[in-house]
Amino acid sequence: MQHGGELAWRCLAAVRARRPLVHNITNYVAMDVSANLLLAVGASPAMIHAEEEAAEFAGIADALVLNIGTLEPAWVVAMAAAAKVAAARGKPWVLDPVGCGATAYRTGVARDLAALRPTVIRGNASEILALAGADARPQGVDSTAGSQAARADARDLAGRLGTTVAVTGATDLVTDGTRLIEVANGDPLMTAVTALGCALSAIVGAFLVVHADPLEATAAALAVYGLAGERAAAGAAGPGSLRLRLADALWTMDEATLLAGVRLARVD
Amino acid sequence: MQHGGELAWRCLAAVRARRPLVHNITNYVAMDVSANLLLAVGASPAMIHAEEEAAEFAGIADALVLNIGTLEPAWVVAMAAAAKVAAARGKPWVLDPVGCGATAYRTGVARDLAALRPTVIRGNASEILALAGADARPQGVDSTAGSQAARADARDLAGRLGTTVAVTGATDLVTDGTRLIEVANGDPLMTAVTALGCALSAIVGAFLVVHADPLEATAAALAVYGLAGERAAAGAAGPGSLRLRLADALWTMDEATLLAGVRLARVD
Amino acid sequence: MQHGGELAWRCLAAVRARRPLVHNITNYVAMDVSANLLLAVGASPAMIHAEEEAAEFAGIADALVLNIGTLEPAWVVAMAAAAKVAAARGKPWVLDPVGCGATAYRTGVARDLAALRPTVIRGNASEILALAGADARPQGVDSTAGSQAARADARDLAGRLGTTVAVTGATDLVTDGTRLIEVANGDPLMTAVTALGCALSAIVGAFLVVHADPLEATAAALAVYGLAGERAAAGAAGPGSLRLRLADALWTMDEATLLAGVRLARVD
Repeated sequence: MQHGGELAWRCLAAVRARRPLVHNITNYVAMDVSANLLLAVGASPAMIHAEEEAAEFAGIADALVLNIGTLEPAWVVAMAAAAKVAAARGKPWVLDPVGCGATAYRTGVARDLAALRPTVIRGNASEILALAGADARPQGVDSTAGSQAARADARDLAGRLGTTVAVTGATDLVTDGTRLIEVANGDPLMTAVTALGCALSAIVGAFLVVHADPLEATAAALAVYGLAGERAAAGAAGPGSLRLRLADALWTMDEATLLAGVRLARVD
Repeated sequence: MQHGGELAWRCLAAVRARRPLVHNITNYVAMDVSANLLLAVGASPAMIHAEEEAAEFAGIADALVLNIGTLEPAWVVAMAAAAKVAAARGKPWVLDPVGCGATAYRTGVARDLAALRPTVIRGNASEILALAGADARPQGVDSTAGSQAARADARDLAGRLGTTVAVTGATDLVTDGTRLIEVANGDPLMTAVTALGCALSAIVGAFLVVHADPLEATAAALAVYGLAGERAAAGAAGPGSLRLRLADALWTMDEATLLAGVRLARVD
Repeated sequence: MQHGGELAWRCLAAVRARRPLVHNITNYVAMDVSANLLLAVGASPAMIHAEEEAAEFAGIADALVLNIGTLEPAWVVAMAAAAKVAAARGKPWVLDPVGCGATAYRTGVARDLAALRPTVIRGNASEILALAGADARPQGVDSTAGSQAARADARDLAGRLGTTVAVTGATDLVTDGTRLIEVANGDPLMTAVTALGCALSAIVGAFLVVHADPLEATAAALAVYGLAGERAAAGAAGPGSLRLRLADALWTMDEATLLAGVRLARVD
């Protein structure tokens, strides 16, 4: 694998050049910040959830991102329909199983969508553990475990589904069942801003469009995002400032910053 | 009653230590800012509205907050189911009757939910007057009356329902039907940012988890929030800046600032 | 026509004085920023979408804004009902046909709502072209054409429906089928923030309340908004900063700034 900073820069530059259209069926809390951070990396976001058009639009978009944060049955129908179109057309799609493990309904929906074999699943440790079958109840939508606790389960899940699984936390893990990459960028203050994990899942969708290897594309997205978060947190007076500065930091991210700051390594 | 600043600090410190899980069934406009300001005071927010999981989740969360800003029938069903679970488990829950009085449907829903006896009801004067039965039509979701105009009706409503009622405005009133507290913190620029009242209701939910007396817990939440708003407004170039700075001010609020700045007094 | 800066200032001052109540049935992404920017110009926003109250509320509000960004059938029913009430009461209403042309469903809904003869239709070039019948597929919700490409179609559409059509882009066009105004305010960085077009449509609704000529009121709203965007972009570190600064710039906009900076001209 090439140097992590070079990989991250190559992917970000390609997103800016291609401006991929990312179709999001996401939760109400994440709509605004996901759209804004997709724009900040250079992608073109669209939020379209009605059954009347979600499948058609999935055929037009370059990537699809499903997020179950504020799910309800009609949305799940549209999510599944859109995922099938994306898969049939060979387009990448991402599942963010928000709060998987918190309620029976939520866990069931997350597992049903995972069974459709997303290109990438991104969640926190509690969510990935619950998705993999462990009895890991999150605190609402926040993880009660560190990412390393989900290491074995994430690898098994990825191998079983033939997908890439990203577990984000203080250190992020990305695995395709065989290979495993760790990304050590990010800042703890990011957990004090809502839906930053959701927005990251959306950005993973954009990166998948421009880089053929989902493992590397996901790791690159996590590194760019985490490093932008570090820069946003430096000097931020709190979570309000951080959110604003994160958009600015993604927008202005450059090659030199990535080469110097990305902490991404294949560990297995 | 102890000094207002001490009460406010004790509650805020307890929220930060316990990190209560606050279940919100709230409106689309308030989703983002409510989640972010709950995080900024140290609570853990979750937004879950589907009938398939709302009642189950109310049994897991530490507090429930219902807000009818963008209501529709399916949401109201989930709200009532969640409120009944919260009440049955002895968990505090808050009703924010946004725009009560504006339409017949909205007023009816607000009264039906109030009849379930929330721990706290927080609204502006027009909303509380309309909820109490007065003919007080707000301008949309904005109050057309000052909080003092709702003083008698708020006390009657609180006494009748056995709940605590908070009327926010230039000066806030909090009453349980017998006692009455006034809180004089806040800044007029806060009314130029949407959904700050909604987010305050959510924060009241968090404070109720850590302090047994709803009257005091609510007054403490109002004081912390209002004082953070004052600090956010000082030097803000407008409402965009204020919103960002409010999250930062809540995040960094400390004991000395509260002891010096809280203006909270029992007046009856 | 009077000087553009004078017109813009007169309208903005009247909005601040009257504080029009603007009823929005809008998309999930735009809810927050639309409400906040309406407040920033001095209007009073309300978001109400349920069939049970949308028509009643349209009768109370001063203006109605329909935005199909995240449409679904139940919302469209409420939109049509509200539009009919607004029209019957002689209240101005605005249609924002977000993503018209992207899917068959979306294009059909946009055309059905346009057939109800909104006071103003505001969109980007791709949306207006698609609404007018041209085969202009946007990239999701982003335009693939400049505003001048829609000049003839916008005029035809306005004339056919008896409405005012605004095509926003690097230079904005506003036409009532006969007259045509160009507005050259704005900054390219505004396209890196989501839903700023949606929020502009909402502000057009507020301006229509205070100025009798829809063509002029719309042009004035575009000029105020664009100039605030210019000031927000000057010195902004990226799109996060710009969004915050836009609210502040609208809030603090004054006569001298408008007189010096508005670039609005009748060209036909």
